Amino acid sequence: MQLPPVVQGNVTSPAGFQGAGIAAGIKKPGILDMALIVSEVPAAAAAVYTTNKVQAAPLQVTKEHIAAGPLKAVVVNAGNANACNGERGLVDARQMTVKTAEVLGIDAQAVAVASTGVIGQPMPMEKILAGIDSLGCALSPDGGEVASRAIMTTDLVPKTGKVEVVIGGKTVTIGGMAKGSGMIHPNMATMLAFYTTDAAIAPELLQKALTRSVQVSYNMISVDGDTSTNDMALILANGCAGAPSIDSEGADYEAFTAALTALSIELAKAIARDGEGATKLIEVRVEGAATEADAKKAAMAVVKSSLFKSAVFGNDANWGRVMCAIGYSGANFDPNKVDVYLGSVQTAKQGMALNFSEAEATEALKQKEVVVTVQLHDGDFSAAAWGCDLTYDYVKINADYRS
Amino acid sequence: MQLPPVVQGNVTSPAGFQGAGIAAGIKKPGILDMALIVSEVPAAAAAVYTTNKVQAAPLQVTKEHIAAGPLKAVVVNAGNANACNGERGLVDARQMTVKTAEVLGIDAQAVAVASTGVIGQPMPMEKILAGIDSLGCALSPDGGEVASRAIMTTDLVPKTGKVEVVIGGKTVTIGGMAKGSGMIHPNMATMLAFYTTDAAIAPELLQKALTRSVQVSYNMISVDGDTSTNDMALILANGCAGAPSIDSEGADYEAFTAALTALSIELAKAIARDGEGATKLIEVRVEGAATEADAKKAAMAVVKSSLFKSAVFGNDANWGRVMCAIGYSGANFDPNKVDVYLGSVQTAKQGMALNFSEAEATEALKQKEVVVTVQLHDGDFSAAAWGCDLTYDYVKINADYRS
Repeated sequence: MQLPPVVQGNVTSPAGFQGAGIAAGIKKPGILDMALIVSEVPAAAAAVYTTNKVQAAPLQVTKEHIAAGPLKAVVVNAGNANACNGERGLVDARQMTVKTAEVLGIDAQAVAVASTGVIGQPMPMEKILAGIDSLGCALSPDGGEVASRAIMTTDLVPKTGKVEVVIGGKTVTIGGMAKGSGMIHPNMATMLAFYTTDAAIAPELLQKALTRSVQVSYNMISVDGDTSTNDMALILANGCAGAPSIDSEGADYEAFTAALTALSIELAKAIARDGEGATKLIEVRVEGAATEADAKKAAMAVVKSSLFKSAVFGNDANWGRVMCAIGYSGANFDPNKVDVYLGSVQTAKQGMALNFSEAEATEALKQKEVVVTVQLHDGDFSAAAWGCDLTYDYVKINADYRS
Repeated sequence: MQLPPVVQGNVTSPAGFQGAGIAAGIKKPGILDMALIVSEVPAAAAAVYTTNKVQAAPLQVTKEHIAAGPLKAVVVNAGNANACNGERGLVDARQMTVKTAEVLGIDAQAVAVASTGVIGQPMPMEKILAGIDSLGCALSPDGGEVASRAIMTTDLVPKTGKVEVVIGGKTVTIGGMAKGSGMIHPNMATMLAFYTTDAAIAPELLQKALTRSVQVSYNMISVDGDTSTNDMALILANGCAGAPSIDSEGADYEAFTAALTALSIELAKAIARDGEGATKLIEVRVEGAATEADAKKAAMAVVKSSLFKSAVFGNDANWGRVMCAIGYSGANFDPNKVDVYLGSVQTAKQGMALNFSEAEATEALKQKEVVVTVQLHDGDFSAAAWGCDLTYDYVKINADYRS
């Protein structure tokens, strides 16, 4: 799949979208904690959700509303995940969509809702309802940037981008924003990603494209292996670019999917790079696998290995930990055919140590983006996975949040 | 299964065994790094090995020798794992058994070999062969304690124990020693466990008993989720207690298995407690599961969660991370029926937060042994898993070993 370049932009880059971000007081006063994305016209919608058996209330409400038809808005809050709140959580999530619908003068079923933050604590609904009022008046065609900051939790930087693709002679734009798997007081990682596009595309194809893009992006990153109750990726397609509608698979669908995939990978890498306490992005490329599943398993095992993540933090050319991780990954391969590279330095050949330059390998590990390549010599499939190093700060952030 | 008490003792506690530990110079001069266990008479042998696809040479040689019949000796070295050394690794491992056989005047096929330490580096065979000579002369009926120290890597304390069980009116003893999953320069965790017993038991039943005991002990601990290329648990049964031979399943077999299981759990917990950088032992009990597999999956997911391990280090009563971990564990359960306890403090009921005392929960987390209980209210099966907290020192040990 040929991936187009991702450039600066956000969810209000495509035509026909407005965005807003405000401080509702869910987090500390003055800290942005609520965002709203609105499409001027009903938009085809698709979403993917966490596989965690414990799913937050907003996910259930959003699933129902997407099943009911097109969406016009997405309301998001940070600071409270509205998870493990039982029946009350569902009531509160529904009320967020009802209030947003009132403010925008639309049907509540046209509103999706997402939350991230503390779990097991009731939502501060007074602040949230007042926040939704403020969001309505704050909507702007340039609101995508502030919206991207309003969904941040322990993220250090907002994560946005856009990509363009020509459909039937017309340029359509996909904009996106994501928040990372930084853990938030007092609870767990949440990954949220929101996309907007002015392309016209059938909902089932939009769903298929989103699912495909997620499989090679968000599903291939790991900060600490934990999977949250609130993860969600959602896309709205409003057709405002005036390009012909993508109603069947083919060149246009493939081009759109490639563009969405490029943006998803860019945002996913931004999440990994911004993992809590991380000082480096680790990219693991597994090549020469017998199947794509083998390549993915092997790549994920390496980016998930606490041993290897610690070694990267310490600039320790510890290729043995790579061998070990692919060994227990469940991937099929022949240990005696494996080559391992740290950056451009080959450290192992046919499963055995090479007498490589420690200095060069250490240099490769000192980069902001550390690339590990594993060649299995076992087939034609490959996969990439992204993660970050394991540092003192990761432990500090997750152990000492109270202090 | 009723488990008998584990008391002080080691691999030379059972009748008819001798042990030795010496400093062969594989590690720093004067540091114990080779051990030998010898049975006066041929002993039935059984072993379980790492599931890692990358398996160290000694494992392959030991498998062959156990398949060939009874064993009389086990030679072990620390400081070099003899993994990822290709054909040369196999030759070196075989030579270790040949040399040990020469020294003891026995058949090389009666010798098992195990290694732990650096991978991808050739074995220092001169030192090792000289070390085996020294081991022969150092053998003693009281050598079990020094042997247990000679297999340590980054372990802070030796791990030994013994348990007694009456078979046909005669008391038989099982002694054991293990080394933990401390990571060693520059490579990965290795778990080694060696048992001796003066019971008489058919090899196939010995294998079955060992496998059963490992499933609820070593297979239920996690220090950092990594699985080594060198893990091995091995048992020798020489019949010297003069008890009737256990040749079929039944009360005697069950009693023997319970005793071996009690010792295995004790040694496994000692390994978790001594995990690198660990300040606490975490015991996770999952009860009320629909199946044993569900209970095990849920328990392991919690002890493996970096988020929860960090929270325990920080005395953070972060029950939401427990909910999250069981949620992605793959276990089947109803999130709305889950109760969570930190120590004796119930923090969640039917999947929702309770208004518990933070002070009491924090106190429970400050203990040296933190017990987390998850009640699924979904069936009659339960499981326990053990791990340790994630600390700055874990990262330090695995990142900065060079400094």
